[in-house]
Amino acid sequence: MSNPQEAAIQYLHANHDKFVEELTEFSKIPSISTDPKYKEDMKKTADWVANQFRELHFSNVKIFPTDGHPVVYGEYLNAGKQAPTALIYGHYDVQPAEPIDKWDSPPFEPVVRGENIYARGVTDMKGQVLATIKAVKAIIKTGDMPVNVKFMIEGEEEIGSPNLAKFIKDHKDMLACDFALNPDTGMIAPNVPTITYALRGLAYFELKIYGPALDLHSGVYGGVVHNPAQALAELIAGMHDNNGKVTLPGFYDSVRPLDPEEREELSRSPMDENFYLERTGVKKLWGEKEYTPVERTGARPTLEINGMFSGFIGKGSKTVLPAFAMAKISCRLVPDQHPDEVHNQLIAYLKQNAPDTIRWEVSVLTGGEPSLSNRNSKWVKAYLKAAETSWGTRPIFKREGGSVPVVSDFQKILNVDSVNIGFATPDDNMHGPNEKLHLPTWFHGMDALVHFFYNLSE
Amino acid sequence: MSNPQEAAIQYLHANHDKFVEELTEFSKIPSISTDPKYKEDMKKTADWVANQFRELHFSNVKIFPTDGHPVVYGEYLNAGKQAPTALIYGHYDVQPAEPIDKWDSPPFEPVVRGENIYARGVTDMKGQVLATIKAVKAIIKTGDMPVNVKFMIEGEEEIGSPNLAKFIKDHKDMLACDFALNPDTGMIAPNVPTITYALRGLAYFELKIYGPALDLHSGVYGGVVHNPAQALAELIAGMHDNNGKVTLPGFYDSVRPLDPEEREELSRSPMDENFYLERTGVKKLWGEKEYTPVERTGARPTLEINGMFSGFIGKGSKTVLPAFAMAKISCRLVPDQHPDEVHNQLIAYLKQNAPDTIRWEVSVLTGGEPSLSNRNSKWVKAYLKAAETSWGTRPIFKREGGSVPVVSDFQKILNVDSVNIGFATPDDNMHGPNEKLHLPTWFHGMDALVHFFYNLSE
Repeated sequence: MSNPQEAAIQYLHANHDKFVEELTEFSKIPSISTDPKYKEDMKKTADWVANQFRELHFSNVKIFPTDGHPVVYGEYLNAGKQAPTALIYGHYDVQPAEPIDKWDSPPFEPVVRGENIYARGVTDMKGQVLATIKAVKAIIKTGDMPVNVKFMIEGEEEIGSPNLAKFIKDHKDMLACDFALNPDTGMIAPNVPTITYALRGLAYFELKIYGPALDLHSGVYGGVVHNPAQALAELIAGMHDNNGKVTLPGFYDSVRPLDPEEREELSRSPMDENFYLERTGVKKLWGEKEYTPVERTGARPTLEINGMFSGFIGKGSKTVLPAFAMAKISCRLVPDQHPDEVHNQLIAYLKQNAPDTIRWEVSVLTGGEPSLSNRNSKWVKAYLKAAETSWGTRPIFKREGGSVPVVSDFQKILNVDSVNIGFATPDDNMHGPNEKLHLPTWFHGMDALVHFFYNLSE
Repeated sequence: MSNPQEAAIQYLHANHDKFVEELTEFSKIPSISTDPKYKEDMKKTADWVANQFRELHFSNVKIFPTDGHPVVYGEYLNAGKQAPTALIYGHYDVQPAEPIDKWDSPPFEPVVRGENIYARGVTDMKGQVLATIKAVKAIIKTGDMPVNVKFMIEGEEEIGSPNLAKFIKDHKDMLACDFALNPDTGMIAPNVPTITYALRGLAYFELKIYGPALDLHSGVYGGVVHNPAQALAELIAGMHDNNGKVTLPGFYDSVRPLDPEEREELSRSPMDENFYLERTGVKKLWGEKEYTPVERTGARPTLEINGMFSGFIGKGSKTVLPAFAMAKISCRLVPDQHPDEVHNQLIAYLKQNAPDTIRWEVSVLTGGEPSLSNRNSKWVKAYLKAAETSWGTRPIFKREGGSVPVVSDFQKILNVDSVNIGFATPDDNMHGPNEKLHLPTWFHGMDALVHFFYNLSE
């Protein structure tokens, strides 16, 4: 290890407490992008990120307005033109915190318990954004950056990044780079560093079913009106067959089959049936039997009900025949599926299956394309080595079930691959109550990033 | 028409405005029995009713506490032992007002628009209770009551009268009577006086489905966990077959078939397919094709989804795989079905059909037995004649789709039949937003009650 590299690592180790304080400050701001009432908090969070860049004397620090929430940009290009340039992606927005009553501590009052820090957004992905900034800071404070870095931190990832593709297109020159570093994917477990080479896409819909003009008395009218909640249940039930396959017409037509080599590599993952049983607390797994759990969550498309509502859901009983029923339905997509194609398939399914006793409406809430990256690029190899240095173990290659549409946007618009890493672990309750970040893993991650930046210049 | 009878009618006609004022006062109190936060309003409403009795110098006026909301009692027995005794039933509680935003005026600020008064509970059944009190008042103010009356006004009808059967058993002697008058059923239309000889029973359940221990990220875990919302939809979808029949095992075993004479009588009802299409606003009716709409809503049992909930139902998108899903499910029952039997059938259905990938729980929220009354009793004949006098048309006999469990309790405990009438019409939006009462029908109803009381003594 070179001396400046060692000095940067020592700088990180000396500042762990300070980093936790800064993450606490960052996570206190409720930057919930989906709810318009947090608009001011979104601005405050963007400012907070920009200030981090200003403190490090980054160039070109700007908060770019979009049609939605702003994008924060900053660059540090002191390594010179011969050195590679990394575009570091992140998002400062977070998921809603509901159901609030399931949290052991308030979602926007970060608290450390044991080895973890708990708050909405700590792991997805304020902690990850901060890790990249602190790794760069450690190098700047103790030596010279061996690579150029450009940070692009958006505020709309949790609502499907509706304005990001346009932003990337509009700022193609500013964002020009050799590869992107995307710390929005996770690790299989603490001490199992992971490189994610594929991400699922997303197609998120709202399905509304309209029955009678008004809520009716279920005694007076029950028996002659098709209950919209029942009609919705019938439609949802028909969206899977008995083998766990999605029945939207043509749903699997564009799915690229897994080849034997990739199945072999995925089979090395420690994420077996018991892993999923333990993490989820279910008594039995579900899904396509001819695929392993790790294939089902990474390499196969799915259709999930994210929310469902009809009629009276308060305490007690109300004998109402509801006028309306609604479901939020989202599909995770794999190459070469496309969100627009799935939208058409859902409409085709409804045209074929919706009864003429009700009216239906589908709207698209968000979407993003799936992506696959080259497992053998020099950027991936630099991280492979860096992670091995930090954790003492060779990383696992993984297909990620979640969606980071920006990876396919970078491929299409900037023509660069992404190195998808991150220090979230599967028990971090991402998107659920009691979201947390494992601090020892976070600190190891910062070390790995310092090694990564130095490895890139070798 | 005898002179005192005419005087009573004139008294009613002279006081219409006053009665609307009193109904306004009565309906302003939000006596929502299902929600504990209205407990004090329930007491206030019971007092209001008791004061009505006290003003008329009723005997034995009492507010009886129960394990839930109190029962208001009062009697006027001046007609003497040789005269018949009517037990007049009513309830002072109302349904919740949700969805509040669908009301054109606030649910607890009664307002007259055109020929109707709008407020939660005006038709179900504060207006009906007040009509019986005002008919008795009119007779007392202008002559002598020809029959004895005992009023029993409960506060738990909208939550299934959980404490009423015990109350009736405990006060069997006090409540002794020749028949019951139950104004909690309605009229087919304004100017179509109606006698309801059958009421459906009710069995109301909450079905809870538990999946993973916590809400999960639908990307990370989608594909290996049976989504509880989907599992609930699958179970609900299976509760009806393609012919609109309920599939709970044995559901129709105890259903008494309709005989040809009764089908003939029901076919005289003006409530045909168009009637239901207009009232509900649906483009096509649904249900058991071999039965007419009036048979399906009155003489056939049903299963309805009253409410359904899972996951994220706010604005925008949240990519959650929910831990939990819930449905409120209620069956309307016809003779000789029993709520306990249907509870067992639901459990049997779930044991047969629920997959082992989820956990389920059923709880009983409320229930009541169906009832059938003698269409040829002297009490029914007295009302038949009274209604004909008031409206100038012979009443229609009807099977009511709604549930008034007290009718079967009166049969079983007091051994008396009920005369089931009332001045609600099907477009009154009972249980829904913009509940209303048609004032001309209400006034006609009071006249009919005066004639009824006089006819009883003939």
